[in-house]
Amino acid sequence: MKDVSEMYIPTYDDVVAANERIAPYIHRTPVLTSSYLNRLTGAELFFKCENFQKAGAFKVRGASNAVFGLSDEQAARGVATHSSGNHGLSLSYAAGRRGIPCTVVMPRTAPQAKKDAVKGYGGRVVECEPSTSSREAVFAEVVAETGAEFVHPYNDPRVIAGQGTCSRELASQVEGLDAVVAPIGGGGMISGSCLTLSHVAPGVKVYAAEPKQADDAARSFRAGHIIADDAPETVADGLKVPLKELTWHFVRNFVTDILTAEEDEIVAAMKTIWKRMKIVMEPSSAVPLATILKNKDIFAGKRVGVIITGGNVDLDHLPWIKG
Amino acid sequence: MKDVSEMYIPTYDDVVAANERIAPYIHRTPVLTSSYLNRLTGAELFFKCENFQKAGAFKVRGASNAVFGLSDEQAARGVATHSSGNHGLSLSYAAGRRGIPCTVVMPRTAPQAKKDAVKGYGGRVVECEPSTSSREAVFAEVVAETGAEFVHPYNDPRVIAGQGTCSRELASQVEGLDAVVAPIGGGGMISGSCLTLSHVAPGVKVYAAEPKQADDAARSFRAGHIIADDAPETVADGLKVPLKELTWHFVRNFVTDILTAEEDEIVAAMKTIWKRMKIVMEPSSAVPLATILKNKDIFAGKRVGVIITGGNVDLDHLPWIKG
Repeated sequence: MKDVSEMYIPTYDDVVAANERIAPYIHRTPVLTSSYLNRLTGAELFFKCENFQKAGAFKVRGASNAVFGLSDEQAARGVATHSSGNHGLSLSYAAGRRGIPCTVVMPRTAPQAKKDAVKGYGGRVVECEPSTSSREAVFAEVVAETGAEFVHPYNDPRVIAGQGTCSRELASQVEGLDAVVAPIGGGGMISGSCLTLSHVAPGVKVYAAEPKQADDAARSFRAGHIIADDAPETVADGLKVPLKELTWHFVRNFVTDILTAEEDEIVAAMKTIWKRMKIVMEPSSAVPLATILKNKDIFAGKRVGVIITGGNVDLDHLPWIKG
Repeated sequence: MKDVSEMYIPTYDDVVAANERIAPYIHRTPVLTSSYLNRLTGAELFFKCENFQKAGAFKVRGASNAVFGLSDEQAARGVATHSSGNHGLSLSYAAGRRGIPCTVVMPRTAPQAKKDAVKGYGGRVVECEPSTSSREAVFAEVVAETGAEFVHPYNDPRVIAGQGTCSRELASQVEGLDAVVAPIGGGGMISGSCLTLSHVAPGVKVYAAEPKQADDAARSFRAGHIIADDAPETVADGLKVPLKELTWHFVRNFVTDILTAEEDEIVAAMKTIWKRMKIVMEPSSAVPLATILKNKDIFAGKRVGVIITGGNVDLDHLPWIKG
């Protein structure tokens, strides 16, 4: 892994530029509240609903910033990534809006619905075996063949600056926030939130929320260096990936704490949000509420932003229904 | 059945008064759009999201108007209704906000979750046998014992005026509507929509959407008199009840047409809305989209308001998952 000193660390100016660049292609998502959940937690919660975002997740912010920041010459060769989740979908959406090629390398074992979704936005899916070595080999072939620009799902300053536009909107939509809680997987959303909030509202504490069964970020945070788990299993399938040097930079320097929740707590929090707030969101997006419910003393009486990161869930297989 | 000439027919002034009266207790719900569904239908759809309403459905508008319009003397004796659905829940919510008693007569066979929801807002549930005769007998006892004011789920001018506030909001949120499509069961929402729109935007056509398997309103509309079905069965369980004289008055005089959809079309439309719009809503609320998809020629190129009437659905038993 590279040292972060070899990488460009995005600044708040990059977030402002990203906001300008991507505004025509994304939604300014609404902030919802629930009097029931406020009573339940003893806090005032403000849910930033990126499940209503284009392509169904916040990831479209970073992907669009990368795509629309390319020179015409770079853009003509297209973009590429490896992702079986929201980043692949988002990059395909953004490339489609710019009218340039996009290739997403996905394991052949990924659900057909996810492959179809990428294709639905005009992207090309190239399959690899479900192993890191196969993915890297296939991806290298794609890049060699097309000259496409690699857009990493999170360890990329363009992507982090794009994700930072979410907390920028939130801070303008809700006055006097005390804290923001967002899920942490690779750390792109958390890094963008730290980047923005440390500039526009430095008193706001940033908490990362992680499944206990994939708590590599929490353990990294306590150890003082990156720890990567080997194939963690969690219902919050967007949060299995490890930190990388750029996101680690933001986590170690700006995050107040990383809180964890058990699988059953995540599923219960997800179902409560569906039932009470009437919104469809992913298991990953329920981890913040699950951790708030376990740590009421931290948040009692506080005004807390909660990032609902995405809404792309398999409606045929909901985690509280045994099939 | 009484003739409508014996009843008070609410006017637009009653809608304005209702709006003033209930504003502190209800949400001004958002209007959502979906570029995907616009492409799919060829129309511009504006979804009025009453699934985000207090108590999870538009019914709280009419119930609140009835409850907060009572004199202090009437209010002290409380309110009562028979309903195993959103009206019972809404009346319990409104009574709780005013701090007066509410009794809801429900069949003992109704789901425990529905009974608990009424109690959760402070209402009292009195059980009857699942027959009309038992319901009427038990309800008469309740009223004799308490002196409570009966608030009918829809055949009540206070309730219809309250429901009329929904289209009033919609017309102020979306300019230049050509049509509004709303589900029809007993006809409270449709009547309120007709009442309001015929006054504030008389060029807007009102379409009612009904399950083919419970198409008593459509058959009444064609026959020119009320036809009531005997125990219709449909996944859209909020739409099984028949028209009554007051709602029939609005339907026969102001509705442009009543469109119907099959069960599988309703379920498919519901799943599409959950998947694409990321909102949780009831099967009844999917009937409008199902009918629009079947009648694209009527709505092509038009600006169409679609009332998402409620979001109270059993998350453990979704109609597209065989359990």
